[in-house]
Amino acid sequence: MTFAATVLTLYPEMFPGPLGLSLAGRALEEGTWSLETVQIRDFAADKHRTVDDTPAGGGAGMVLKANVLAAAVDHALAAHPGSPVLAMTPRGKPITQARIRELAAGSGVTILCGRFEGFDERIFAGREIEEVSLADIVLSGGEPAALAILDACIRLLPGVMGAASSGAEESFEEGLLEYPQYTRPQEWEGRTIPEVLRSGDHAKIAAWRKRQAEDDTRLRRPDLWERHRDARDQPASGARQKD
Amino acid sequence: MTFAATVLTLYPEMFPGPLGLSLAGRALEEGTWSLETVQIRDFAADKHRTVDDTPAGGGAGMVLKANVLAAAVDHALAAHPGSPVLAMTPRGKPITQARIRELAAGSGVTILCGRFEGFDERIFAGREIEEVSLADIVLSGGEPAALAILDACIRLLPGVMGAASSGAEESFEEGLLEYPQYTRPQEWEGRTIPEVLRSGDHAKIAAWRKRQAEDDTRLRRPDLWERHRDARDQPASGARQKD
Repeated sequence: MTFAATVLTLYPEMFPGPLGLSLAGRALEEGTWSLETVQIRDFAADKHRTVDDTPAGGGAGMVLKANVLAAAVDHALAAHPGSPVLAMTPRGKPITQARIRELAAGSGVTILCGRFEGFDERIFAGREIEEVSLADIVLSGGEPAALAILDACIRLLPGVMGAASSGAEESFEEGLLEYPQYTRPQEWEGRTIPEVLRSGDHAKIAAWRKRQAEDDTRLRRPDLWERHRDARDQPASGARQKD
Repeated sequence: MTFAATVLTLYPEMFPGPLGLSLAGRALEEGTWSLETVQIRDFAADKHRTVDDTPAGGGAGMVLKANVLAAAVDHALAAHPGSPVLAMTPRGKPITQARIRELAAGSGVTILCGRFEGFDERIFAGREIEEVSLADIVLSGGEPAALAILDACIRLLPGVMGAASSGAEESFEEGLLEYPQYTRPQEWEGRTIPEVLRSGDHAKIAAWRKRQAEDDTRLRRPDLWERHRDARDQPASGARQKD
């Protein structure tokens, strides 16, 4: 099954961009995923092909018009009924690896990219659209965010990373950062690889890595650590208790 | 002054990618910023140009070698001494708009992009490198993250957005989400623009927007809201008290 990615943008020529190369590029050639771009401007209602207008109430920048956005979204959904529609906006819910896994397990995703000051808010009342934020930074448009979201989905599609790298042992799985990695040379600028990693004792190595992942998460990401601890200490609601 | 962006990558052909178009593309042509890519593979020490090796202690994937990374970083810093070096890694500190503003105010940035399982951890002890995470998702490599970070910096460079849009009134300034935006048509699918925005009363509009920004931040991003409230209620340490 091909994972169908649709991007609604004023800059279709930004795609596939980096996704045309390396892992994602090979997967695109092999048909593991497909890419369709929709030029939002094609859905403008007037002869000047106007997509934006000044903000109601004043202020800098321009706002993308709800009627134009709705026409573009409706067009995309007609081709891919039921596809989740994500709008990239700093007002959205922060994206998580759990949501990426859900998306990658589905049949595709439609991503709406804004520019200027953003979207007319009514589009989110008028259409079923998930407002998603990539990071707490402001981009010139949703396009770089869409590329990152798609990249994260594509690497999880069957066959893309190969059997060896299932993606199960990496950052954010189990809500922890990944443990630190080392490779040859054994000594570099006076720094050696931690002894335990050369022990050949798999149980000891696994325990060391787990402790490192926990320590690093606690020190670097107290926010993740708190959530991890809560999830660990409290059985999920509705889940059977072990004891 | 030109903002000098240097990207260390195994896929230099991914750049400028989307940054060659629109705002960033125009700014690149005009010399507001410059882009240099450094092929990490050029710094491999052996005739097979090996950049990675298997993880010490076992496990899937490959780890980028510390000696190769160090040679590439040293090369980049020789051309741009004092440039901040960011490594894109999910183990890093989450990027913030405040850090983006600092970077954009400087003379440039050097970004190190990983692939595979990541970097030999010793590189972070051996060189002054800031480990930065774009989002709590796992990418196939640092390149899409580097594109997003650079995009966020470039739009803040003098002249890029134009005088009208200073970027001062947008998400994450003052630690809040931006207020919702609306534009014509006045009525769309039975939904009207909030009355206050048509009042022409600038003070009332400003107050409404501030309340919306606060309400949306509290509801959508309790994490940001908590930090905003703490910052608002407690004078910064070392700052003069107003009363």
